[in-house]
Amino acid sequence: MTIADQLQGELAALLGARFSTKRADREQHAGSETFHRAPPPDAVVWPQNTAEVSRILALCHARRVPVIGWGTGTSLEGHALATHGGITMDLGRMDRIRDIRAEDMLAVVEPGVTREALNADLRATGLFFPVDPGANASLGGMASTRASGTTAVRYGTMRDNVLALEVVLADGRIIRTGSRAAKSSAGYDLTGLFVGAEGTLGIITELTLRLHGQPEDVAAAVCAFETLEQAVDCVTATIQTGIPMARIEFVDAETARAFNSYSGTNLREQPHLMVEFHGSGESLRADVARFGEIAAEYGGLGFDWAESAEDRSRLWKMRHGAYPACLSLRPGATAVVTDICVPISALAAQVAAARDDIRAEGLLGPILGHVGDGNFHSTLLVDPDNPQELAAAKRIANRMAERAIAVGGTISGEHGIGVGKRGLMAAQHGAAIGVMAAIKQALDPENIMNPGKMIPDPV
Amino acid sequence: MTIADQLQGELAALLGARFSTKRADREQHAGSETFHRAPPPDAVVWPQNTAEVSRILALCHARRVPVIGWGTGTSLEGHALATHGGITMDLGRMDRIRDIRAEDMLAVVEPGVTREALNADLRATGLFFPVDPGANASLGGMASTRASGTTAVRYGTMRDNVLALEVVLADGRIIRTGSRAAKSSAGYDLTGLFVGAEGTLGIITELTLRLHGQPEDVAAAVCAFETLEQAVDCVTATIQTGIPMARIEFVDAETARAFNSYSGTNLREQPHLMVEFHGSGESLRADVARFGEIAAEYGGLGFDWAESAEDRSRLWKMRHGAYPACLSLRPGATAVVTDICVPISALAAQVAAARDDIRAEGLLGPILGHVGDGNFHSTLLVDPDNPQELAAAKRIANRMAERAIAVGGTISGEHGIGVGKRGLMAAQHGAAIGVMAAIKQALDPENIMNPGKMIPDPV
Repeated sequence: MTIADQLQGELAALLGARFSTKRADREQHAGSETFHRAPPPDAVVWPQNTAEVSRILALCHARRVPVIGWGTGTSLEGHALATHGGITMDLGRMDRIRDIRAEDMLAVVEPGVTREALNADLRATGLFFPVDPGANASLGGMASTRASGTTAVRYGTMRDNVLALEVVLADGRIIRTGSRAAKSSAGYDLTGLFVGAEGTLGIITELTLRLHGQPEDVAAAVCAFETLEQAVDCVTATIQTGIPMARIEFVDAETARAFNSYSGTNLREQPHLMVEFHGSGESLRADVARFGEIAAEYGGLGFDWAESAEDRSRLWKMRHGAYPACLSLRPGATAVVTDICVPISALAAQVAAARDDIRAEGLLGPILGHVGDGNFHSTLLVDPDNPQELAAAKRIANRMAERAIAVGGTISGEHGIGVGKRGLMAAQHGAAIGVMAAIKQALDPENIMNPGKMIPDPV
Repeated sequence: MTIADQLQGELAALLGARFSTKRADREQHAGSETFHRAPPPDAVVWPQNTAEVSRILALCHARRVPVIGWGTGTSLEGHALATHGGITMDLGRMDRIRDIRAEDMLAVVEPGVTREALNADLRATGLFFPVDPGANASLGGMASTRASGTTAVRYGTMRDNVLALEVVLADGRIIRTGSRAAKSSAGYDLTGLFVGAEGTLGIITELTLRLHGQPEDVAAAVCAFETLEQAVDCVTATIQTGIPMARIEFVDAETARAFNSYSGTNLREQPHLMVEFHGSGESLRADVARFGEIAAEYGGLGFDWAESAEDRSRLWKMRHGAYPACLSLRPGATAVVTDICVPISALAAQVAAARDDIRAEGLLGPILGHVGDGNFHSTLLVDPDNPQELAAAKRIANRMAERAIAVGGTISGEHGIGVGKRGLMAAQHGAAIGVMAAIKQALDPENIMNPGKMIPDPV
């Protein structure tokens, strides 16, 4: 599909230089952080406000031209690829923080604001926005993929931390969902519907986010375990006792090796837990002490506490650098990144089965995860020019997904569906796919909103 | 509308004595705990399993007969009234606890299980289900109204504690939403869509609920304040410091008076906070001490700590008995119960404005609320035979709702819309009402699922 001259003229008139069909601009919006690829979009637009988003969508709707939202391009499942052609809408210039209401612990932001930019602005308020997927993603993109990350075990995911939205629908209508109240029983939860909709139902143009108090004191540590099972059992016991963990992350021996070679650390090449506690004074010390007792019971090999803020920052920088660290185990490789999430009782067996499968296929694939949520990732390293390896990685990923579904888990804990997991949606949802398709059809009858993603094409 | 003979025959053949058109059965399903009234349904059915629910809906769908879900009948907004005639589906016989997975901290229940029944079953597991609206409501009903209550400030609402659902759609199709994983980014959040849908999109036939660890130690107390503002400011400061409150409830002087006369307590006739902390040992004591310091700063007049489990039980029994206690202030009265929820910075002014308004209209209307959430209720006491009083109460309720909307709040924090707040939905949601109506139309094109509730009738 290419864009009719008339639409080009209208968009150029509306946006001036913020409408582009230049090859370089299109190529910049064609990439993906993983192996997913598609041709570039036919054009790129950079709206600056909601009214422009509305006008662009109305024009594209009238001509049935696809519109693909773009945040920072850090999605792992090809969410922002122009698989059906059309126009990529880069929301990076809608990056204003519109309001910070410290007393109400909420912030109102445009979709292009990144989580780091918001937190920099919040520093003086004593508040912070906790959702942390690692990448410095845009908050609109994080909402659209229902992102989470290391802190979800304590603070929840984007689903829990988006209070309200402004959304432009496929035909250009502007709606508001949710409210600034902490909870509401007034009508269908449209906020929850648009969070995680991956841009298939509309474009988010404003988010009202729940903020949290910066913890007065923080404690973080790394602890090695002899076995994966012991590490996971330690987590289960900790969570059941109700100790409020801020982060509790698992890395396997191979990931520890990746950290050592990439970050110059000196971890044992064994499974580890990386933990963080948020609290204050005595209360925090009591939590830490209780966790220490539990870890000792499960054979934890002693804690390396990050005492200073610098040490903690180094620890989580290492963790957040896991993706490049893992990639560095095999220079020149690209990755198939898996993302299943299972009930915690199934976690140890699922990780073990994944590891066996990866070995049997002869691939390198370090495993790490947000173990408090039952969510883990394998970074399957493949030669981009070797179709056999890519096929092997996809077989592994599919089997992981099937095993997750078999125990009542999910094919995606936090990365979303995009193009990468679309083929698994029927296995995950069964007849409920029909409900998703009916909602999509009701809100986007022309199928212009990020077509080809998440749910099956209309027949 | 009455039910055609043929449908009566089919339902009787399917359900035997669990299909009834007897006056007594119909009258039993015509009530409401508040002033809302409608004629009884044309018939009542008591399905025992999902297959029966599916069959009943398929039959009613084919003949466009309304179906109204019924849990325990404790809704306050007339949700289960047969305003458009049709069949009330009493889910009270689907009351089995299907599975308790202690290690995964989840329970799978049928919709007729009440929260007290579930918690009785959980006692030996060390886990509990925290959502507590006061009434011993059914979990299906609580999900359908997105209920919350005194513990939402710590454990969230039904939105946060329902992981997965089985739902029968209007035409009898059975779907499953969500998963047993702690989080998921796989597709539209259909669980979140059906939670709070008030039976207008389908009938919930199974719920997978998130459980929490029973706290090792609990501390609860009552504290009086000179003014409402001081009590609210104390709450704001507490929440901002991140002290994990399990409950933090406000009652005004009039409610304190109601408790004294109804429960024989000896509270000062002043505003009070009722608080509870969940934790363990030292950590809990540290939280309590820190809260004590904050309360003292805001003029708290000393705490009356409920030291024993019996004292705590008495305290919360008193709080949960607030509705009959308030009704007892005016024997023979019925109530219009308000339910706005606002950003916490607006709370003190909104409560004060409500109190002034109630006085100006010359009604009795004690105020209490889940102050940590910004949610408060006034129980407006009216003579059921006095239309002027009812009109005055509705004026007050509408003005409260308008003031809530004006500060970005919501017309319902936890009671839902039903018939009572339906007229306020357009003011709350604006153009988003069109999205709700489109979803309703897509999933229930014949408008048989609890018609006349929540969203406008199709035109």
